Amino acid sequence: MTGAEPRSGMQRKADTLAKLHEPAIDVWVASASASEGGPAHAHLVPLSLAWIDERVVIAVESDSRTARNIIEHGIARLALGRTRDVVMIDAVLDRAFDLDEVPAATADRYAAQSDWDPRDGRGQFVFIVLRPERIQAWREVNELAGRTLMRAGSWVV
Amino acid sequence: MTGAEPRSGMQRKADTLAKLHEPAIDVWVASASASEGGPAHAHLVPLSLAWIDERVVIAVESDSRTARNIIEHGIARLALGRTRDVVMIDAVLDRAFDLDEVPAATADRYAAQSDWDPRDGRGQFVFIVLRPERIQAWREVNELAGRTLMRAGSWVV
Repeated sequence: MTGAEPRSGMQRKADTLAKLHEPAIDVWVASASASEGGPAHAHLVPLSLAWIDERVVIAVESDSRTARNIIEHGIARLALGRTRDVVMIDAVLDRAFDLDEVPAATADRYAAQSDWDPRDGRGQFVFIVLRPERIQAWREVNELAGRTLMRAGSWVV
Repeated sequence: MTGAEPRSGMQRKADTLAKLHEPAIDVWVASASASEGGPAHAHLVPLSLAWIDERVVIAVESDSRTARNIIEHGIARLALGRTRDVVMIDAVLDRAFDLDEVPAATADRYAAQSDWDPRDGRGQFVFIVLRPERIQAWREVNELAGRTLMRAGSWVV
């Protein structure tokens, strides 16, 4: 516990947008698979992120579990920051682009913010564009109240 | 990229155990739910952790999505540390204890390592004891090789 006063909603939104624009920032991406009759598995990986036109853009290998889960189920849950200064994002699949169909502007902006370019020939990647539905941000227990900054795709602060 | 040399397996194991013993350390816990006919949802939350007898112990509200998912499906995927100094743990459910049945030693050791005690009367919690099946640790791309430290529940380094 830091004992700090809880931040205002506006401050949390500003802090959240600053994180989303940070160069070379990584995001935890959780996705799920459900095999027929088997248990539901959660997958979780750290990935580079770009924040483009109010969308989270990630790039993953086309045959990765993350790509398959998100494209099949259309949803993901993302965490940004540290466990005690967290931004949680529930997002839905907006678009997915293979390397040969990704708009140059999207790939360029992804490469500019992240620290690598999936077009560099190292493998087969897919760009996944995720639309945030809900964004929450909190640090300590005293920030659990007022943690929801976006609901149903709209900023509420 | 830091340019640092990749760590040896023994060093990664030592670093991993140091993280697991760290006071007040948090862990990202991903779990999944699959509703009949609906998409598979991944849930993801930061939680306090205790490392007790080679098990990860967490405590969550009994009616939380994390508790329900793990108890129903018996598996979770955990991440410890930062996105560029990560420990990933695939774990299976070993035991779950309500407050009135948790062994005192387990709850005491949980309270000693984490920064709170679920027995303090703030609500109804369940202690979930997870047995690691696979543990991987890496920092940068040059540590992806050799990242598996535990496989099928046994240390391999």
